[in-house]
Amino acid sequence: MQRSIDDILKSEQDNINNTLLKYIHQLEVPARLKESVLYSIEAGGKRLRPLLMKLTCEGLGGEVDKVYPAAVALEMIHTYSLIHDDLPAMDDDMYRRGKLTNHKKYDEATAILAGDGLLTNSFHLISTTKAYTDVQKVKVITALSKASGLEGMVAGQYLDMEAENKLVSVTALEHIHHLKTGRLISSAIEIGAYLADVTEEKREIMKRFGDCLGLIFQIQDDILDVEGDQELIGKRVGSDIDNDKSTYPGLLGIEGAKQYKARLMVEAADCLQETGLENTDLAVISTYLSERDQ
Amino acid sequence: MQRSIDDILKSEQDNINNTLLKYIHQLEVPARLKESVLYSIEAGGKRLRPLLMKLTCEGLGGEVDKVYPAAVALEMIHTYSLIHDDLPAMDDDMYRRGKLTNHKKYDEATAILAGDGLLTNSFHLISTTKAYTDVQKVKVITALSKASGLEGMVAGQYLDMEAENKLVSVTALEHIHHLKTGRLISSAIEIGAYLADVTEEKREIMKRFGDCLGLIFQIQDDILDVEGDQELIGKRVGSDIDNDKSTYPGLLGIEGAKQYKARLMVEAADCLQETGLENTDLAVISTYLSERDQ
Repeated sequence: MQRSIDDILKSEQDNINNTLLKYIHQLEVPARLKESVLYSIEAGGKRLRPLLMKLTCEGLGGEVDKVYPAAVALEMIHTYSLIHDDLPAMDDDMYRRGKLTNHKKYDEATAILAGDGLLTNSFHLISTTKAYTDVQKVKVITALSKASGLEGMVAGQYLDMEAENKLVSVTALEHIHHLKTGRLISSAIEIGAYLADVTEEKREIMKRFGDCLGLIFQIQDDILDVEGDQELIGKRVGSDIDNDKSTYPGLLGIEGAKQYKARLMVEAADCLQETGLENTDLAVISTYLSERDQ
Repeated sequence: MQRSIDDILKSEQDNINNTLLKYIHQLEVPARLKESVLYSIEAGGKRLRPLLMKLTCEGLGGEVDKVYPAAVALEMIHTYSLIHDDLPAMDDDMYRRGKLTNHKKYDEATAILAGDGLLTNSFHLISTTKAYTDVQKVKVITALSKASGLEGMVAGQYLDMEAENKLVSVTALEHIHHLKTGRLISSAIEIGAYLADVTEEKREIMKRFGDCLGLIFQIQDDILDVEGDQELIGKRVGSDIDNDKSTYPGLLGIEGAKQYKARLMVEAADCLQETGLENTDLAVISTYLSERDQ
């Protein structure tokens, strides 16, 4: 019997949170800077990316404990990106997950440095973990830095801002989201498969699954900005429209966006079928990401 | 016969600049973001840290070509730190090396992302270079991320800002500068020695040399802010005083600062003597760093 999404989400949150907090706590960092790092770490995301990495590794028969250093590093990179994206010069957000954003709670300089530090130390964590061989460390660092750097997430955030107040094509929008959110989600699955030591062919299929999941995640994000419940999503509904952002509902209509999402769900399910993971928690997660209300 | 400082400084600038530019150029990055990265890369620093790494490796009998990936990665980290430090929320500088700062030339969001990207890709460069074994990659990434992360440069920049408008002790000031500028300079020398594959003992001595050099560099920086020529240093003289920054001349008096610098020069020379490097370009560089007018 498959577990419920709540059980799946909760199952890993404690492990991830504990490993994350333990790593940050043992660092020697100026008190208020450390506090601001912990503030954003503790802001309580769903830990979706670490979970995807763990479920992928587990589903493909890998050793689950191997996942934690890479999963925590990935979550640190994700957290840094949220802190920087929220800055006044970027998306200028006051709230994130219903709490004040880092620069509102502390100040801009502290938020910039907290982000810089989380990013830098994510690589330090991997390079110094006892859990991986040097070969594994290099592979994980390569995947993470590629997904999040100038050719990945950073480029996506740049293009996303450049596209404000402009009408962009669906292809361009897809490219932006692929870079901005897709690459990091996809890297979670790629690293999970790598650590499970599966064939190149299976890894490629799982990479495709990751790409689908990233898009599904973003389309649902855009839909929630139109149809969502402000209380649940923790930010103002309609903020994309107010910021003149191109969105899937904006370009395809709300029904068109939902149809596109449904097609991607079929492709994601095919990938799971091909790798024998169709009855695992990953299938439940896919459905959840597609239908989530927050 | 020893080379002149100009010859030494110039000798490596082309090699470093070419390797740096080649790496950035081949990346697939949105045009204006890439332009802003190149703008700061081309702003023409002295490439002091790469040079120190190269001279250390060379002096200790290492293979010089091995130095370039690590040297370029280090310079990317240094460049990112300058871009972020100049931001309005941080030191709020309009000029750097006589040119507009990145956020003044482009905009704040672009400057933040250019910095984030340079930092991330510095690790990607190391993890993907063909010049190192996996063991070497891990060592270099560990040294760089330790020197520049939450326990290093990021902490130093935070403490430096926190110390504004406050009187701090000489010990506290030294701690700040050790973290803010010393650690990265020291890591250049540490990595140079590591790549030359010398004994642990020699590496420790060179690390001490690096620490001295970092302090000498900072003391002279502070002295230039009092006695320097605005045209030469490329920023306004007296800006530390205006920003209520604690400085060595402020705490020790200008003569006290110079005496302290002289003592550190003796210690640095001792380190070079102990490692047999007293007649190499490193000695010339030390003197230059202590007496430079820009």
